[in-house]
Amino acid sequence: MKLSKLIGSRFKERPADCVIDSHALMVRGGYMKNVGNGIYSEFPVLKKITAKIEKIIRQEMDAIDGQEVLFPVVLPADLWDESGRYESVGNELLRFTDRSDSRMVLAMTHEEAAVHLVREYAQSYTKYPFMIYQIQRKFRDEARPRAGMIRVREFTMKDAYSFHTSQEDLEKYYDRCYQAYNRIFQKAGIPDVVTVASDSGMMGGSISHEYMLLTPVGEDSIVICGECGYRANMEAAENKMVNEDNGALQELECVETPDCKTIDDVCSFLKSDVKKSCKAVVYQKNSNNTFVVAFVRGDYEVNETKLRNIVGEELHAAEITEDSCLVAGYIGPYNIAQEAEVYIDVTLKGISGMVAGANKEGYHYTGLNLERDLPSVEYADISKIQEGSICPCCGKKSIAIKRGIEVGNIFQLGTKYTKAMGMQYTDENGQMQYPVMGCYGIGVGRMAASICEAYHDDFGPVWPITIAPWEVHLCCLRADDAETKETADKLYQDLQGAGVEVIYDDREGVRPGAMFSDADLLGVPVRVVVSPRNLKESCVEVVTRDKSVKEMVAVENASAFVQELKDKLYAGVYEKVEPYL
Amino acid sequence: MKLSKLIGSRFKERPADCVIDSHALMVRGGYMKNVGNGIYSEFPVLKKITAKIEKIIRQEMDAIDGQEVLFPVVLPADLWDESGRYESVGNELLRFTDRSDSRMVLAMTHEEAAVHLVREYAQSYTKYPFMIYQIQRKFRDEARPRAGMIRVREFTMKDAYSFHTSQEDLEKYYDRCYQAYNRIFQKAGIPDVVTVASDSGMMGGSISHEYMLLTPVGEDSIVICGECGYRANMEAAENKMVNEDNGALQELECVETPDCKTIDDVCSFLKSDVKKSCKAVVYQKNSNNTFVVAFVRGDYEVNETKLRNIVGEELHAAEITEDSCLVAGYIGPYNIAQEAEVYIDVTLKGISGMVAGANKEGYHYTGLNLERDLPSVEYADISKIQEGSICPCCGKKSIAIKRGIEVGNIFQLGTKYTKAMGMQYTDENGQMQYPVMGCYGIGVGRMAASICEAYHDDFGPVWPITIAPWEVHLCCLRADDAETKETADKLYQDLQGAGVEVIYDDREGVRPGAMFSDADLLGVPVRVVVSPRNLKESCVEVVTRDKSVKEMVAVENASAFVQELKDKLYAGVYEKVEPYL
Repeated sequence: MKLSKLIGSRFKERPADCVIDSHALMVRGGYMKNVGNGIYSEFPVLKKITAKIEKIIRQEMDAIDGQEVLFPVVLPADLWDESGRYESVGNELLRFTDRSDSRMVLAMTHEEAAVHLVREYAQSYTKYPFMIYQIQRKFRDEARPRAGMIRVREFTMKDAYSFHTSQEDLEKYYDRCYQAYNRIFQKAGIPDVVTVASDSGMMGGSISHEYMLLTPVGEDSIVICGECGYRANMEAAENKMVNEDNGALQELECVETPDCKTIDDVCSFLKSDVKKSCKAVVYQKNSNNTFVVAFVRGDYEVNETKLRNIVGEELHAAEITEDSCLVAGYIGPYNIAQEAEVYIDVTLKGISGMVAGANKEGYHYTGLNLERDLPSVEYADISKIQEGSICPCCGKKSIAIKRGIEVGNIFQLGTKYTKAMGMQYTDENGQMQYPVMGCYGIGVGRMAASICEAYHDDFGPVWPITIAPWEVHLCCLRADDAETKETADKLYQDLQGAGVEVIYDDREGVRPGAMFSDADLLGVPVRVVVSPRNLKESCVEVVTRDKSVKEMVAVENASAFVQELKDKLYAGVYEKVEPYL
Repeated sequence: MKLSKLIGSRFKERPADCVIDSHALMVRGGYMKNVGNGIYSEFPVLKKITAKIEKIIRQEMDAIDGQEVLFPVVLPADLWDESGRYESVGNELLRFTDRSDSRMVLAMTHEEAAVHLVREYAQSYTKYPFMIYQIQRKFRDEARPRAGMIRVREFTMKDAYSFHTSQEDLEKYYDRCYQAYNRIFQKAGIPDVVTVASDSGMMGGSISHEYMLLTPVGEDSIVICGECGYRANMEAAENKMVNEDNGALQELECVETPDCKTIDDVCSFLKSDVKKSCKAVVYQKNSNNTFVVAFVRGDYEVNETKLRNIVGEELHAAEITEDSCLVAGYIGPYNIAQEAEVYIDVTLKGISGMVAGANKEGYHYTGLNLERDLPSVEYADISKIQEGSICPCCGKKSIAIKRGIEVGNIFQLGTKYTKAMGMQYTDENGQMQYPVMGCYGIGVGRMAASICEAYHDDFGPVWPITIAPWEVHLCCLRADDAETKETADKLYQDLQGAGVEVIYDDREGVRPGAMFSDADLLGVPVRVVVSPRNLKESCVEVVTRDKSVKEMVAVENASAFVQELKDKLYAGVYEKVEPYL
């Protein structure tokens, strides 16, 4: 198509409200427009990209016997009552009533709808296994949408649901889906996506994986072992930290520590190593406001997901008042109020003498040794693993922490939903059984934005050819020059005739610099420049967006050269795609 | 794919809650499942059909230079405040608040979102004309969803918006879109869709057309002239009814008509022709409850859309109490209370002496002549045209009334939205102007259901090949017979290898009758039956769903025969598609 007709404006200035590059570039390039908090419209450029991503996803879902269906965006609350999630999910679930005061929700995920669709169909074991998927809009009422398409409230998602008669069969299918996901990301030009074990959160179930595209601006922390290849997200990574060589036991003393409310204050006041200090982080249970105190070594952070899983319910940050049983700033594990529920992290194990709050305004203990002073002490894993920590898999001190964007996830759900919603089948022996489920998600818009984040330069995205809005960007640098225009027009026709997707910039009176800026912002993999200067040598210039190719090509060979280059770029992506097993 | 793996159950019994055939067949055939009031999930069979419809729509929208975009389902209320529709639209617009108490709506149409997307982009006349479209979910909180996918609350719709610098340019494009719509319905196998002039309703603008698929169960009434081809929907059809040869004037008399509250009561009591009576229908204005009285001839009905347009605001049915200025059952145009706003229909013009309420409990006038007795009388067109009425176009008494389902609509919107939302461009002379808009809708799911309604028999849908879920339905009647199974398997592979879309029923132990019932419910255009009996003659049986072809074909020719038949069926559809101009 002609660039002059393309809907969407491109501009130079980085919008002030864009924190990450991909967001800024996609706004500057006319990809998307903000409609409300975390809500965007897609211009044609982005729509072309997401359509190609959706096509790749469909290919791979179909290849693992997925059948495409469509669930509604708006669901009656009854369905979510059945699963219990109408109550259990927080404000991210948008609840409202319709004109007849019926309670409805905007679906943020479709496990309930999936079970609803198939529970009459799949009443015999002979129907299993099967998988259904959809590509559909979802709404998640995020408290803090951010980073453009990375974290929005309304989004297009591919969500798939598989149903099985045994955990083994689920695992077999889970592996197939795992491979299919790899192929999706490989075909979309991001073969370097890594999978990490993850926490299942509100989805339920046990085993789950996230697909992470590594980028310094990612909002997730990923734990990677450089030795054995272990990978997990921060929420799921076990901390196996061991305190060694802590020296001799000291005497327990209660010392005055005036105005020392933070662990750093205390350690510098007492000239003590923060690695020998005990930090308290206090929460309250959502259900009854009981205090939950998490103790970790002073230089560690509490992993709230792990804590929540151990406590077994939802928590919020504590409000400690003068009437509370706890003394803010001076909380320690020794002599703490009985009313508080206490969890002591593994990072505190084996410290010979440590500094900890004395549960008394203005005082801390020194020389505390938990094994001696709290004989019944039990340790829990409630801290975040750190760079250089011990790998929970191979045991070496080889843990690195990277940042990534989650571009997909897969879950083994077990029977959580089928049991709650009364979906059963008759097995070979005539017994009623609950099917075992898996679910598998990919955010389409987020995937586009993540690819932009991972592959861009200062001037724009560098789209992989498989998902680029067009394959070739043709610039006619002087449309007012008859020969130049004629050559460019003919090349446009030849390429289009050969089935090449071309965006053609034949605008008159636009300077080359502005044309190239536009081309950079559109990020099309192959650029062809027709100009009077090149034509003097009977050539056109062919450059790839990633600068790996830059050649002068004779006009008469241009079309063939570009087609060949295009094929090579596709081949470059496809050679990284795992073969079907 | 194998039928044994197809998700969705088929069954024999017509569900009690299905009023129209298409609804019953699509539930019985495993096409859709009800999730809530007017909300459905689509099983794979329907999803395949809607995907094909969407593909046809995209082809035609792209062919008229449309650019695909995507708007959100959830919109901030601000946008609808800008257009004024947040206030003006009724309960069909679902309004709610999000977690931060911001007012939101579920978009039921996207004019506001379209203007929002392009108003910065299109600030110069050089950008015009252009058209953007999307295929997206919408939610309309219908009071009475019904007829399956025909009238639902959540639906997939293609909506397109064009922008122009003049009414003439809009009209030119409107014509192109008109043709594109014809081609869409022709390609989808329903070339007999008719267009009718329509009322623009809440969309605003003047000229609009609806595309109607004629069927006796359609919920719309369509006015068609058998002479000149004039077509309009009931809401838009002008009633040119003329009372002729009414005889001499009579004296105006007030007569007692005890207990005659309906027009039929009065006419039979007075032994008067209902065609010489005057019927009152009373409304109140939504804004201030002023009574609005519509008078029509006793045998005509009020056309509420035309009345509303003339009154210029929304109305509701009146509540007349003892304190009202009107006397229920005895309301007439002569001596009616000044407080009421009165509209007199053209059907009352020229009646020499008529019966009408006397605005007095228990009394009617006879011999009323409006021209004589109400010298300043003005007539308005507020009645529904009837079978045999005068065609407003050619003037002959040749009007027929048919029923139809609206499968698409196109509107000339003018500057309603661009003015309200402050979208302007600079014209050739540097002057600021408001662009002129058109909008163009097609409901995807409704189109599928309408086609089913128009083309089905007692046993199932008869899908046109262009939108059928598969092209060929292959039945292996005795999968336990080795030769039969082998022949069918090979044919399945051959056809799939040739790119034919095949659903293959190789279930063991299913009776032929049940297999054929399933095939009828899936409505696939070509059925191929492999059975031991046919194989005795070295043949397979090939039948089309519409029974126009039924042949025994030698096994070795079967694949070629089926492919040729398939091509013929496509050609049969495509020969009815208008060529591009």
